[in-house]
Amino acid sequence: MPNHIVTAFDDELKELGRNVAEVGGLAEQMVDRSISALMRVDIDSAEDVIRDDRRIDDLQREIEEKAILLIARRQPMARDLREIVAAIRIAGDLERVGDLAKNIAKRVIALQGQFQPPKLLHGVEHLAELGLEQLKNVLDAYARRDVQQALGVWNRDEELDALYTSLFRELLTYMMEDPRNIGFCTHLLFCAKNIERIGDHATNIAETVHYQITGITLTEERPKNDRSSTASIDLPQTDD
Amino acid sequence: MPNHIVTAFDDELKELGRNVAEVGGLAEQMVDRSISALMRVDIDSAEDVIRDDRRIDDLQREIEEKAILLIARRQPMARDLREIVAAIRIAGDLERVGDLAKNIAKRVIALQGQFQPPKLLHGVEHLAELGLEQLKNVLDAYARRDVQQALGVWNRDEELDALYTSLFRELLTYMMEDPRNIGFCTHLLFCAKNIERIGDHATNIAETVHYQITGITLTEERPKNDRSSTASIDLPQTDD
Repeated sequence: MPNHIVTAFDDELKELGRNVAEVGGLAEQMVDRSISALMRVDIDSAEDVIRDDRRIDDLQREIEEKAILLIARRQPMARDLREIVAAIRIAGDLERVGDLAKNIAKRVIALQGQFQPPKLLHGVEHLAELGLEQLKNVLDAYARRDVQQALGVWNRDEELDALYTSLFRELLTYMMEDPRNIGFCTHLLFCAKNIERIGDHATNIAETVHYQITGITLTEERPKNDRSSTASIDLPQTDD
Repeated sequence: MPNHIVTAFDDELKELGRNVAEVGGLAEQMVDRSISALMRVDIDSAEDVIRDDRRIDDLQREIEEKAILLIARRQPMARDLREIVAAIRIAGDLERVGDLAKNIAKRVIALQGQFQPPKLLHGVEHLAELGLEQLKNVLDAYARRDVQQALGVWNRDEELDALYTSLFRELLTYMMEDPRNIGFCTHLLFCAKNIERIGDHATNIAETVHYQITGITLTEERPKNDRSSTASIDLPQTDD
């Protein structure tokens, strides 16, 4: 194959990677802003996040189409094919992260003017910081093609799940203490669940980065601090 | 191109379609069994569903790999390419449906031995019936390549969202009435949310079937009975 064709293909691959990084940046920004909006009950900011979700959906669709055309035209093998498949998968996870940030933003709008004891927000903020860090780190691992950093994210999901479990309990306690907290806490429970799921998508991306670089699918069950089978009523689920 | 090659390709496409239908059947069965398990708090059945999730994950991965190799080898155009892309997307949605059924099953295990007033379950059962019907109908639309049936599912998601909204309110009322209901109702709220999300995936599949047959992406916003912006505290979110 003449060299200039290989080079053109390399350029196309690089562009695809840049597109994925762009979606990653947008997803990260949406999560960050949805959490700030939640902490300050900032409606304008929440509406910005909701608007951005449309953009992320479009970008994901473009990446998918571009990737599929690339496979059809270039018939890539091995690492090149994995690179393209990884772009499709990661864009899919990032699109879901955008949805989850939008869900948080929509709850901010639902919360306005309600009874909101600030202490109830602390735990959610802390959970969100860890979730956002996981997302940042895995995007960094993707950008640098760093399998060790990806594995670091993969292993750390357990910590996020444990934090979610304890926050779930805490919010349930507030609900039992004072029925006026029930509505607000229920919204916060769903926000917390959205953050925990953002962490799951960061873990999925870590698996994809690992596969992209090594060609090996991580089949071992991801470490989960899932204590659902010990089964007290106030234990939450670490859903998938 | 010699005829026998076209035929072989047709066979490959048909096989891919059968694989997707198989995953669809499994997903439907998992949802059905997770709901029965929830209604009867049947741990064995819940554990079966949790086990099946592994199978659905594997099948989805196989479809994705097979589809990508098919694109690379056959360089299909137009309708054939859409057929393959649709298989990838639908398998992805079905894998998520499997996750959601598993989440419900995990909550069944967490619920055992707890205070469970049966009346609290009626609304969830009703919601589940509609969700399952949407899933069955869209899989049928896929099998029959029936764009009208797919549009029917797409339009009916609104009804599921409205039902979820009223169930959310009902469960919140039970929580306020009697704090002993808080734990159980919180689990049911998450189960209801999982069912509502199964409905969203049925809607995604309807969009994919529409695209596969017509080549047109449904860009119009899906009808949503989303009343989040009217924003009383006891209004739930119809998340994406």
